Formats: sequence, C-alpha cells, structure tokens
Amino acid sequence: MSDFTEVGNSELDAFVTACFEKSGVSKEDSRITADVLIESDRRGIASHGVARLRRYIEGLRNGVMVPNAVHEVVKETPTTLLISGNGGLGQPVSYKTMKLVIEKAAKHNVAVAAVRNSNHYGIAGYYSMMALKENLLGISMTNTSPLVVPTFGRNALLGTNPISLAAPSGREQPFVLDMATSTTPQGKLEEYNRRGKTIPEGWATDAQGLTSTDPALVLKNLKTRAGGGLLPLGGASEESGGHKGYGLAMIVEILTGVLSAGAFGPDVGRSPNAPANVCHFFAAINVAAFIPLDQFAAQLDGLIRTVRDSAKAPGQDRIYIHGEKEFTAAGRQKERVGLLNKVVEDIRDVGATLGVKAGF
Amino acid sequence: MSDFTEVGNSELDAFVTACFEKSGVSKEDSRITADVLIESDRRGIASHGVARLRRYIEGLRNGVMVPNAVHEVVKETPTTLLISGNGGLGQPVSYKTMKLVIEKAAKHNVAVAAVRNSNHYGIAGYYSMMALKENLLGISMTNTSPLVVPTFGRNALLGTNPISLAAPSGREQPFVLDMATSTTPQGKLEEYNRRGKTIPEGWATDAQGLTSTDPALVLKNLKTRAGGGLLPLGGASEESGGHKGYGLAMIVEILTGVLSAGAFGPDVGRSPNAPANVCHFFAAINVAAFIPLDQFAAQLDGLIRTVRDSAKAPGQDRIYIHGEKEFTAAGRQKERVGLLNKVVEDIRDVGATLGVKAGF
Repeated sequence: MSDFTEVGNSELDAFVTACFEKSGVSKEDSRITADVLIESDRRGIASHGVARLRRYIEGLRNGVMVPNAVHEVVKETPTTLLISGNGGLGQPVSYKTMKLVIEKAAKHNVAVAAVRNSNHYGIAGYYSMMALKENLLGISMTNTSPLVVPTFGRNALLGTNPISLAAPSGREQPFVLDMATSTTPQGKLEEYNRRGKTIPEGWATDAQGLTSTDPALVLKNLKTRAGGGLLPLGGASEESGGHKGYGLAMIVEILTGVLSAGAFGPDVGRSPNAPANVCHFFAAINVAAFIPLDQFAAQLDGLIRTVRDSAKAPGQDRIYIHGEKEFTAAGRQKERVGLLNKVVEDIRDVGATLGVKAGF
Repeated sequence: MSDFTEVGNSELDAFVTACFEKSGVSKEDSRITADVLIESDRRGIASHGVARLRRYIEGLRNGVMVPNAVHEVVKETPTTLLISGNGGLGQPVSYKTMKLVIEKAAKHNVAVAAVRNSNHYGIAGYYSMMALKENLLGISMTNTSPLVVPTFGRNALLGTNPISLAAPSGREQPFVLDMATSTTPQGKLEEYNRRGKTIPEGWATDAQGLTSTDPALVLKNLKTRAGGGLLPLGGASEESGGHKGYGLAMIVEILTGVLSAGAFGPDVGRSPNAPANVCHFFAAINVAAFIPLDQFAAQLDGLIRTVRDSAKAPGQDRIYIHGEKEFTAAGRQKERVGLLNKVVEDIRDVGATLGVKAGF
C-alpha cells in the first residue's frame, strides 16, 4: 500500500475552505488561505501545505490568529504601503497586499509594501509569482519565529526568513527562487525526525551552541527556546560563509519587522496564545519600464538555457533552475494532489472536530 | 620590518586621481573612482582597493574600459532608470546613478535603476551606503565575469554577484551587508595562493567539476575558462544549500544584465580587449514613507544590540554585525591607510609609467 492518497484539488479546496469558515474566517479569506496551502502541496512543498491545517485551526482557536481580523492600511503613498494584518491569518493579508503592490507597480513601475501584525503566510513564492501574470518581477519575504542562530551565537534569534523572487520568462518556465536563509528549513528537521534519521553537520546546533545531528533535540530546544537552533545558509563558520546567511536573515528582519514597526527577532511569536506578529515585505518592478517584456523574457530564457544545458559535474546528470522542480510537480498535480496518508487522516480529523466532512 | 606602509589618505587620493586623469579619464570621474578604491582600503577590504589600480589602468589602455565614456540615460520614469555606462569605468556611472536613484526615492519613496555596459565597480557597499546620508535604505548589486559554477554544473557561468543593503541606524553603526553570493570571493583565493596555502573544501572545483583545494589551479582555470570555479554560498550540494547561493547569483544576473539588456552569465567580460559589459542594479527605499525615521533607527539599534549582546557559542567571544568590522577599520584609517608594501611598490610603478609621482 502506498504512503500517499491522491485527493481531488476541488474536493480538497472545498474542505479546507470550509474548515476555515467554520473557525470564523470570512468566505473570501478562507478561500485565499486554502488556495495558498493547496498550491504549496501542488508544487511539492508538503511542509507548507495542508499538513499545517491543524496548526492554523488551533491558532485561530487559541488567539495566535484572529479569525475575523480585517487588514488595515496604516500608511500609503503612490509607491508604498504599510499594512497591519491586525492579528489575522497571514495568507489573506499577504494576498491582498501583493494585489495592491502589483496595481501600484503597474502604474508607477515599482512599489513596495511592509506588513506587520500578521501570521505565518505559507510559501513565499505564492506572492512573488502573483506578479508574473502582470509581467512584473515579484518579491516576497517574511520573518518567522526565531529559529536561526547568528554566526558565533548560541541562541536562535532570527527567523528562517525566506526570500522569493519571481521573474517572467518566455518559452521556459518562470524563474522562481523561494529559499529560507537558513541552510535548511525547520520542516526538513521534522522530516528527518519522523524518519528517525540524524541530520548532517552544519544544519543545526544544540542548546550549548555546538553542532548537533539530533533533529528531535534541536526541535525541542527551538520550541522551548532553550538555546541552539538552525544554522544560517553557509553553516557555522565565516570560512564557510555562515555570516552571509546570517546577514540575509538580518535583511529580512529589517525589511519586514523593523520597517513595519512590527515584531522582529525574538519578539516574533513570543506567546503561544497571542498574535505572533509575523511581518512581511512585498515588492514588484515593472520590466517594461526598462526594456520591452519580450526582450526580457527572451534573455531570461537564454540565461536559463545556458545554465541548464551546460556541462555537468561528475556524477550529475541535471542542473535545475529555481522553480523547475515545483512547476513539474504542479503540472502533474493539476487535478489531483498526492498527500501523505497520515496527513489525510489528520486533516479529516481536524474537519471532524469542526463538523466539516471531507469529500475525499 | 612591517609588511605594511601607512599612507596619508589625501596623498593617496591625489596620486590615484592623477593616474586616472593621465589615462584620459575626466577629473570628476577620476576623483570618484579614486574615492571608491581608497574607501575600500579604509574599510579593510584590500582586495577591492588600490591594489587593483594596475588592472584599471591597463583596462583603460587595452579597451576593456573607455576612458572618456559618458554615461547615458536610456530610459527614465519618475521611479526607474535604465543607464548605459557606454563602456566606461564602473565607479563613476555607479556613483552618478545611485545619486539619481536617491533623488528619485527622496521624491517618490522608492526608485530602482539598472545599468549596462559598465565595468568592475569596486565594493558594492559604497553605493548602498550613499543612501544612508539621505535616511534611505540603499541596495546595490553587480554581476561580474563568470566565476561561479551552478549547483551540479562543471563550468563557471555566473558572477560572484555581490549583494549589498545598507540601513540607517541610531546610536549603533549602520547595518551594511556586502556579500558575494559565492562561498568566498575570488580575492580570497588569490590571498591563499600568495601565501602558498591550500583552500578549504567547499570553496571551489577543478576543471572536471570536482572539489579542489589548489587555489593556483582554480585561478588559472577561471582565467582561461577551462572549467570549474568558485562554489556558490552553501557549497557543492543541495544538502548544504548550494542551490540557494546559486539562486542568489541568478537573481543578481536577472536584476543586472537581463533587466538592463546588457551582458549576463558567460557573456560578461568575454574579451580581454573589449568592454566587459558588467551590469549593476541600484535601489533606494524611503524609510519615512513607512514609519518615522527615529523609530526605524531605534528599532534597528534594538535588533543590533539583541543579536550582538546575546550568548556566544562555545569558544566565541563576539558576534559581529554586518559592517561592524569595516566601520572599525575606517575609523582607525581616517587619516592614514595601511597598504601592503608590495601594493605601494606596485602602484608607484604604475604611476611611474604614467609620469605621476607618488607623494608618499
């Protein structure tokens, strides 16, 4: 028997949407949140998909997320936006903010938004990719609860702070980078832990700040803020470039929490029963303000082909372009998405507690 | 006897400026270029300082850089600029473009520029830091000749593609990240090579695409484009996050060479006797369009202190903030800058061939 169940996208969408609605979220916001979660599963990023449904529903129940929060424009100029999510789900406020950023960039060629008092927004790439339809470059970043230790530090003070940039292509798939600025995201440790595997050196440290290969220990320490955590991209030393990943994490804290006057560093997600005050940053740039879109797309295609079709290192038969694996998965899972059996069981159970029946 | 000579900043400035003027560069552009180079030495980044004077002067002689090039605004909107350097030195066009970006951002709150047909522009942080005086966030990126291999690839196809972001602080020094997106810049290999040391695993590959610890070999292969090169931040594997550094290098190629319709990937610096067509990207964001500057500065100070003053990993006694080491060096070298004796000899020799006498 396979570990996976194939579930129809529309049945899954109706179910997840209903779970949010039953939790007090508006129909529109429920739909947006469901789509962001399921798009993540479609793109093969199961760690950010419906497997998190329970956490969101619990968050709505215990006060980390305010179900009926309405986002608010705190400050606006023709090219900038400061938005408060007022403690609501991260997905709706992020979706709506990126929509506004795209409108502004279509008119003024570049626009930037900072969002405060939000929550976990799912995959960063969902929002950067929204810009592609309008032929814009899209950028999306978020801070997260503190999970990453600064270089030479003992405690996790910075988020995994993903950065995403999406760029419109021609015949090739768009370029979509979506990366945590830590060597590995927390979800990877959870995966290794479930499988009972040790993690490679250079991923994480223990409570004393020394390299650890025990994912259960690291995850427990992170949860209790006992010390140690994930290492930044580049690892533990300056020799291996760890200060660069740490610097990228700082940039994200600055553009999200500092610029929005929200929470940053260890102040994100301080309480298990209060809004996490996660902060985001979005931007869009109009390609046509520089060169004709066709030319841009043809050139990006050229760069993609040059890299992808170049000679491989010994033992390798493929060079991947960023977003390629995800577009392949999404193409395969247009109608039905593969979920781990235990995820299907878990979300059915979440539905049952809410009185929502799964149509799968 | 020390390996270093202390040279007065103003004597060094007069000398370097005169070398550029004698090479056919205008007085203004010579001054700008000298200041960018010397500022690099002051900040302790000797690899990008006057040690490169010979390369620039030779570039001006052999056609890689056009001495009297005048930069040209190809396309302009209130918030965007597309500029051509027309083959001139990278520093003057970058300085002038960032000035314009800052003006635009002061008026419209955000502005973005792409520059094509330029050359090596020195330290990325010089330009991002220009925004600090105007209380803006500054961003600067450049592509470079191909030095970096994509993950699983054999050939160097991407530049070391530095990214810099500068953010205004209050009582603390500003936050200034300025990082190559490779694990290590080429200059580090040159340094190890001069000292006859092997380089750590994870920095570079040989012509076949296998890890190499021989800096001389890697540098020779890069020069002749024989295969191999520097590894992206995160190293050779996806496990260690190498695809992330490779993705960041792609972002820089896209925002510089692709967006400007200049050169990107292996087309940068193809010929040793023609303009290198290096491309840059600059941006500025007005903090005050979001929150009062004082509040931003106080919050950034708070983030800096929280990180810097946090518990250290075993064996470490300091956590560095990005830019901190460089501000310390610059504070120490306000009047006189320490140069390696052989750099002093070399630039004196360059001066002699141009009929410029060093006042040090």
